Amino acid sequence: MPQKVRIALDAMGGDHGASVVVPGAEISLVRHPDSEFILFGDTAIVQPLLDRYPRLQGAVRLVHTDIAIKMEDKPSQALRYGRWKSSMWLALEAVKKGEADVAVSAGNTGALMAMSKFYLKTMPGIERPAIAALWPTLRGESIVLDVGATIGGDAQHLVGLAVMGSAMARVVFDLERPTVGLLNIGVEEVKGLEEVREAGQLLRASNFPHMQYVGFVEGDDIGKGTVDVVVTEGFAGNIALKTAEGTARQLGEYLRSAMSRTIGAKLGYLLARHAFRTLRDKMDPRKVNGGVFLGLNGVVIKSHGGTDAEGFAAAVDLGYDMARYALLDKIGQELHHSTTVAATSAGAAS
Amino acid sequence: MPQKVRIALDAMGGDHGASVVVPGAEISLVRHPDSEFILFGDTAIVQPLLDRYPRLQGAVRLVHTDIAIKMEDKPSQALRYGRWKSSMWLALEAVKKGEADVAVSAGNTGALMAMSKFYLKTMPGIERPAIAALWPTLRGESIVLDVGATIGGDAQHLVGLAVMGSAMARVVFDLERPTVGLLNIGVEEVKGLEEVREAGQLLRASNFPHMQYVGFVEGDDIGKGTVDVVVTEGFAGNIALKTAEGTARQLGEYLRSAMSRTIGAKLGYLLARHAFRTLRDKMDPRKVNGGVFLGLNGVVIKSHGGTDAEGFAAAVDLGYDMARYALLDKIGQELHHSTTVAATSAGAAS
Repeated sequence: MPQKVRIALDAMGGDHGASVVVPGAEISLVRHPDSEFILFGDTAIVQPLLDRYPRLQGAVRLVHTDIAIKMEDKPSQALRYGRWKSSMWLALEAVKKGEADVAVSAGNTGALMAMSKFYLKTMPGIERPAIAALWPTLRGESIVLDVGATIGGDAQHLVGLAVMGSAMARVVFDLERPTVGLLNIGVEEVKGLEEVREAGQLLRASNFPHMQYVGFVEGDDIGKGTVDVVVTEGFAGNIALKTAEGTARQLGEYLRSAMSRTIGAKLGYLLARHAFRTLRDKMDPRKVNGGVFLGLNGVVIKSHGGTDAEGFAAAVDLGYDMARYALLDKIGQELHHSTTVAATSAGAAS
Repeated sequence: MPQKVRIALDAMGGDHGASVVVPGAEISLVRHPDSEFILFGDTAIVQPLLDRYPRLQGAVRLVHTDIAIKMEDKPSQALRYGRWKSSMWLALEAVKKGEADVAVSAGNTGALMAMSKFYLKTMPGIERPAIAALWPTLRGESIVLDVGATIGGDAQHLVGLAVMGSAMARVVFDLERPTVGLLNIGVEEVKGLEEVREAGQLLRASNFPHMQYVGFVEGDDIGKGTVDVVVTEGFAGNIALKTAEGTARQLGEYLRSAMSRTIGAKLGYLLARHAFRTLRDKMDPRKVNGGVFLGLNGVVIKSHGGTDAEGFAAAVDLGYDMARYALLDKIGQELHHSTTVAATSAGAAS
């Protein structure tokens, strides 16, 4: 890809809108000078912010719209008033029309997913989309999907998730054959859901060229970083993600209260504050901000709604990587392999 | 209950067997002098340990068996060689025959659940058993169930879990009307599983006298302690539990490594070590050790297999409370209410 990476931004999305999106884009541009942006939003709000960033100004085209999707609206409402004209929709449209390689929004997740499904449609071979999250682990980072796009699903759906997740791991972690595990439960008397077992057999049989299927993993394997890609349907995945977030916040709270209780602890905190800063960095959700919508005809990145400029920049970086290293092509190749294998074994069976 | 609480112990269960069970029983006996124990295990191993605890010795009957269930065996294997004669089975038998009020084992979870189902059978009105866990939260503790006994289940199953969990909360937390939430996912475009929504409607309609149903909760509500009882089927529940354990271990690891990196941090650690000890206590899984098997004709407590005497004592304490404060009666009363409500509305409908 010799040309620039073209990134469409929903400038009005998220709790803080353009005041986070514009400086976030600037931060990412410094890291990736071969990016260019199309910003969709209210010119009266966005232009004054852009004026403060001359470098970004030179890499941006601003398209006006005064319709923005509200964070609290239901997807159906958002579609009704926001189709064809909201900043969120227009960012997706840029991808749909081939004017941008990726769209990034910090807006309403439900609305963004509903519009993405409606407008971009799912890829051939994928029936339902997924949201993939980057998850900090003891070994670095892993990809967990689906964290909430699609509830339930059969073995074939899980295989599709494995294909998409491993393609994303190749892009984000620069791996030739990422390791993949199916999330399951280990209590002996229940050996896991039927579809998870069947997906395991399919994954072993398919022998994907760019995926190393290692078997079942359990909830505590996620944080250990046992595999590069953890695959599960959206209900369990969302509960795992939220539970981990809740636990991290809880332990942070315990730590804060423990460190402020006595003079000794406060002094200790002062002496160790660099260590605490390192710890906070490790736990910093901004650093791994951005869920990736997978399975659509186009790359869409969802940034956390409450994030700041640094966090939004991380989401834009992620979008840059996905476009630059051709995520969709990689997914397409693996899906093609999958279809070929299925056809061959069907041929062999007949 | 004027008489003593009679506790049957599988003396051979767990990674450390009698060397943890015997001192654990002693610790619990000091806290609850109105307990008495039946220990099942190999006399040659257990008796020498008992000799060291004269107080416990006076409250114990030791029953010999030289068959113990191995931690790594599958439930089917365990049932084959352990039925009628293993220390685990005999502890359950004491409950079955009314010789004990509760059984506690640190042994193989799958085997214990399989034997419990096979031998004690489920209560009238409950089709499938559950495992309830005590979960440390920012507000204290909550009960989460099912953490892995039964995969899936319809709305009626979830209502049963709510009934059993709230009865347990009345016993453990001494509450008149514990708050109950159904675990669900909050991503807008998917409004949750059909059975979860239906269970919510049933719980609202039933208006149980000893339960305050507050609606859906998400994964991060568990650690916040938003409700006293979090209800979910066993797949998602097990994944939530294991993910939280993994996250806690991961953050502990980050903390350790951050605190040992520089001289300042090490000094800080020394000054703050009391605070760190408080923190470790809060995160101590031994303090909340013990899953409760619910829905059976008898109370069975599963202690963590790798626990020490303090942790095993916590599991015995839990068993004591369940027996002393009549868990099974409380579940039975609520189930009766449920049946009455169903009959009344069926009558009204006809």
